[in-house]
Amino acid sequence: MTKNDLHDYVASVKDYPEEGVTFRDISPLMGNGAAYREAIDQIKDFAKDLNVDLIAGPESRGFIVGSPLAYTLGVGFVPARKVGKLPRKAVSASYTLEYGGVNELEIHEDAIKPGQRVLIVDDLLATGGTINATRKIIEELGGVVAGVAFIIELEALQGREKIMQAGEVPFLALMEY
Amino acid sequence: MTKNDLHDYVASVKDYPEEGVTFRDISPLMGNGAAYREAIDQIKDFAKDLNVDLIAGPESRGFIVGSPLAYTLGVGFVPARKVGKLPRKAVSASYTLEYGGVNELEIHEDAIKPGQRVLIVDDLLATGGTINATRKIIEELGGVVAGVAFIIELEALQGREKIMQAGEVPFLALMEY
Repeated sequence: MTKNDLHDYVASVKDYPEEGVTFRDISPLMGNGAAYREAIDQIKDFAKDLNVDLIAGPESRGFIVGSPLAYTLGVGFVPARKVGKLPRKAVSASYTLEYGGVNELEIHEDAIKPGQRVLIVDDLLATGGTINATRKIIEELGGVVAGVAFIIELEALQGREKIMQAGEVPFLALMEY
Repeated sequence: MTKNDLHDYVASVKDYPEEGVTFRDISPLMGNGAAYREAIDQIKDFAKDLNVDLIAGPESRGFIVGSPLAYTLGVGFVPARKVGKLPRKAVSASYTLEYGGVNELEIHEDAIKPGQRVLIVDDLLATGGTINATRKIIEELGGVVAGVAFIIELEALQGREKIMQAGEVPFLALMEY
């Protein structure tokens, strides 16, 4: 299995969630043991030199990328959850949704200690809203964003540019569409 | 790190989500690399003899338990998602929420092939509603539930009994409260 083969495990769904949009669905990739492992291991290679203390991922597909990565690196996983789901004191940040509206993510206040290096991951980079909200919370807690990694980048939406505007960080996308 | 040490990484939150309830929060466990790995590896040991083809986990904390397990076993991960989030044809089942109301989970129709053996995992077993809904979908798709595993079991809520009423399956809970 090579990097290019991963494309075979992306289902492209036309006109979802709205007309004119093609949704890139990584369910087949996650559902295939070899493809899933290959994707996570490629992100692991990227993370190797970043001196990472924690992995963070936004709810909920970010969990499916971030938690196996945390496991295999032997570091903790920090979920950035939709607002109202965390039982203890949390810090939140809002972001604009790709298809309209505003949402909010939050992270437990004790999840990140000042100076800890956090790699943010998600399945797909679109406009970068969730990633920049996650980053804002991490930095508010004193953490350092060590890098960002995605299985898919939707290049036309220029999310990468928006992330870099908030400060240059190492970047990885396994596939571009 | 031993099984018993994992208790040190559970935050018990009094009167959440409502008065009189103590919420068992595994965020500290997931956030600690050694504790997280230990928990996943204990479930891996349990899974070893179950001949598992896939791991399934309900949205969204089930993803944080199930996806590293799938990764380390080298099998695929199948998310049971809250209704309306999957882009392709899916099968759904409803369940009663622990604190009132009804919800629905769904799994992509092509995620499980007839005869595939699926281990269902979640962070916490309460009344068993989400697990039995996940099981119902898996069985409707022709899959076989190879077992169920949890980091925490809330014994007083008798979720284990409700799971076994739907058919005996191998069971693991790393901690009981």
